[in-house]
Amino acid sequence: MMDGERQGDWVFMVTARAPTNIAVVKYWGKRDQKLILPINSSISVTLNPHDLSATTTVAVSPSFKADRLWLNGKEVSLQGDRYQNCLREIRSRATDVVDAKSGQSIRKQDWQRLHVHIVSKNNFPTAAGLASSAAGFACLVYALAQLMGVQERYKGEISSIARIGSGSACRSLYGGFVEWEMGKDDDGKDSVAIQLVEETHWEDLFVIIAVVSSRQKETSSTSGMQDSVNTSKLLHHRAKEIVPKVIIEMRKAILERDFATFARICCADSNQFHATCLDTSPPIFYLNDTSKKIISMVERWNKAEGTPQAAYTFDAGPNAVLFAPSKDKACELLSRLLFYFPPAADKNISSYVVGDVESLAFKDIDSPFKPPEVDGINITRFSGELDYILCTRPGGGPLVLKDHLIDSSTGLPL
Amino acid sequence: MMDGERQGDWVFMVTARAPTNIAVVKYWGKRDQKLILPINSSISVTLNPHDLSATTTVAVSPSFKADRLWLNGKEVSLQGDRYQNCLREIRSRATDVVDAKSGQSIRKQDWQRLHVHIVSKNNFPTAAGLASSAAGFACLVYALAQLMGVQERYKGEISSIARIGSGSACRSLYGGFVEWEMGKDDDGKDSVAIQLVEETHWEDLFVIIAVVSSRQKETSSTSGMQDSVNTSKLLHHRAKEIVPKVIIEMRKAILERDFATFARICCADSNQFHATCLDTSPPIFYLNDTSKKIISMVERWNKAEGTPQAAYTFDAGPNAVLFAPSKDKACELLSRLLFYFPPAADKNISSYVVGDVESLAFKDIDSPFKPPEVDGINITRFSGELDYILCTRPGGGPLVLKDHLIDSSTGLPL
Repeated sequence: MMDGERQGDWVFMVTARAPTNIAVVKYWGKRDQKLILPINSSISVTLNPHDLSATTTVAVSPSFKADRLWLNGKEVSLQGDRYQNCLREIRSRATDVVDAKSGQSIRKQDWQRLHVHIVSKNNFPTAAGLASSAAGFACLVYALAQLMGVQERYKGEISSIARIGSGSACRSLYGGFVEWEMGKDDDGKDSVAIQLVEETHWEDLFVIIAVVSSRQKETSSTSGMQDSVNTSKLLHHRAKEIVPKVIIEMRKAILERDFATFARICCADSNQFHATCLDTSPPIFYLNDTSKKIISMVERWNKAEGTPQAAYTFDAGPNAVLFAPSKDKACELLSRLLFYFPPAADKNISSYVVGDVESLAFKDIDSPFKPPEVDGINITRFSGELDYILCTRPGGGPLVLKDHLIDSSTGLPL
Repeated sequence: MMDGERQGDWVFMVTARAPTNIAVVKYWGKRDQKLILPINSSISVTLNPHDLSATTTVAVSPSFKADRLWLNGKEVSLQGDRYQNCLREIRSRATDVVDAKSGQSIRKQDWQRLHVHIVSKNNFPTAAGLASSAAGFACLVYALAQLMGVQERYKGEISSIARIGSGSACRSLYGGFVEWEMGKDDDGKDSVAIQLVEETHWEDLFVIIAVVSSRQKETSSTSGMQDSVNTSKLLHHRAKEIVPKVIIEMRKAILERDFATFARICCADSNQFHATCLDTSPPIFYLNDTSKKIISMVERWNKAEGTPQAAYTFDAGPNAVLFAPSKDKACELLSRLLFYFPPAADKNISSYVVGDVESLAFKDIDSPFKPPEVDGINITRFSGELDYILCTRPGGGPLVLKDHLIDSSTGLPL
């Protein structure tokens, strides 16, 4: 992993890629702000990192004068508690590392004084509200753990470090279907992510993300969830009485690949999360009128067929993450999106429908059909209300990559 | 009350006017569909009938061949259960009535075979979603009770008959501030409205209603609340655990004219009601993006001042009902509405701001100021998003009027 020399000193680096994830049983509310311990367990689907992921190179060198971070091409401060907590926890678990290629060794105690340079970028727009902080912190912590030879002393230990960077980041440490167990301990050791099943367990599941245009200024999820904890009476009932049962049902639905149950819980849990946002004072609105049109579209389809054809879920923003139980249903879902939400006049279809379009083998991209459930109904089409539509699938967890984002001769971003 | 002859027969009639009301602790969910018994108590403010009310003439004559109803100029069927239940309950309580003017008497048992003609109209657009069914059923039941000489055997008995027409109608039987006690009895006898205080108790309270344009098709409140009862887990927690405490707090706030507490509860309860709608499967959305802008406007103002300047509440639709604690604050509120929501270009101000504008003595109607709390912030103004703004105040209960809506010589609408 030794990649070069700089001013006579060595630079040692690791690059990793980590996925985003989308919760299907939502995390909303902390019982401990500093350790980021949640008031309920949550379950997520890891999304294919090929379509949505963060890539991070972490480097150390005796020549580095300070810890530094470049995010999507711009240097930003590492002074925030979240970064500092992650760095401290990883450094405290560092071990003796010997680079196989060069023979250069770094002793356990050296990590405390060696500075790191971190370069990270997303393969999707940060502003799109697609869980960039989850992928980012998962990737940072995973890469640092690789660099510093951190071995887990208990299952999920590294995920618990990602958790103190950004709660939902812990779920991005695994591929497939992941549960973040809320835990009971005050020190947060048992608040870890565990993989329920790998992505290959449910190969027929498809994911389509509808990115909504012209988004209003939003409440950050960090401050929003704290306001909810402090003011929503419904949130505590949800966390204590409702979610524990929902978690058990959702685990079972995933293990059995039971799409009808998965869809029912997924939609209801998303709506209930947004209900607790509305029950917050002052109220928080993440869903806008376009989000509601997407919900109505799915509900109308599901009602017409009598059984769930697709499911929706919304995080702290207006974008819809939609699930379909097969390639055919995913194509029908995409057709519906294109019917209700044609691209803006100045947009061509290839920049409107992006991501893993190939897996869908979608044929009707230029001529979306009118869904049978709206036959005889006067439906308005909403051109330009979506920015783009991203096709993807469940995917794998973090990986080490060979191509670095740091120039080994300068220690700076390439 | 005898008003003429028709084909040799007498026509006997009564005309009444009844107000609308706006709930500040919401009713949502029935424990008995047929009797319309609610799952929680609710509290409302009766609105001035001069601005918003139903007027109804009920007439009987031996010459009438059937019960008939004309609503806002159009004959409609009286066959619905709600009408039939109200008619049956009032008829069963009818007494011997002697008309003072003509000396004509109707014996108790005669009411069972005498047919009624009913003509009713609202002084506001029915489609505007301003509780027209509450005013309508309250007025119908009140007028019929007057006509048939019904005396209450217990307090609130007539309100309980209005209740089986439309739940919230029971609260329109009284002026001022009214509580609908949910009751415990299976037969609904104790599920009645009671007046907390008259409208004169809180003379400084002003009401401004922002009627939102271009409304989407909405879920009716009857089917919506049943869906919520069947599917929302949060609703039952609200009804059982939260509302009983909120009712006690709201009663106290009204008795003490404590606007800060009134406003806090009013806004939180409205948001919580809409949260339970969102927690329904499929989710129900009554608030649209314009509603949210009004909420943000009020929240921003209240936050800037550090104490509630105004309160909002929304029923089963996007229109905002806003409260202000004084004439001055009501003018400031109106200024804000006009700043954020100027009338559409083709609308003049006198048809945009309607109702009891006089009481406000509003001076800046042509030049709304920019609110200080948005100084330095780039605020978009949303011309045309409101249809009109209605100024009103708390008002009195049902009254008997002298001018009838039925022609005594024909028995038909005038």
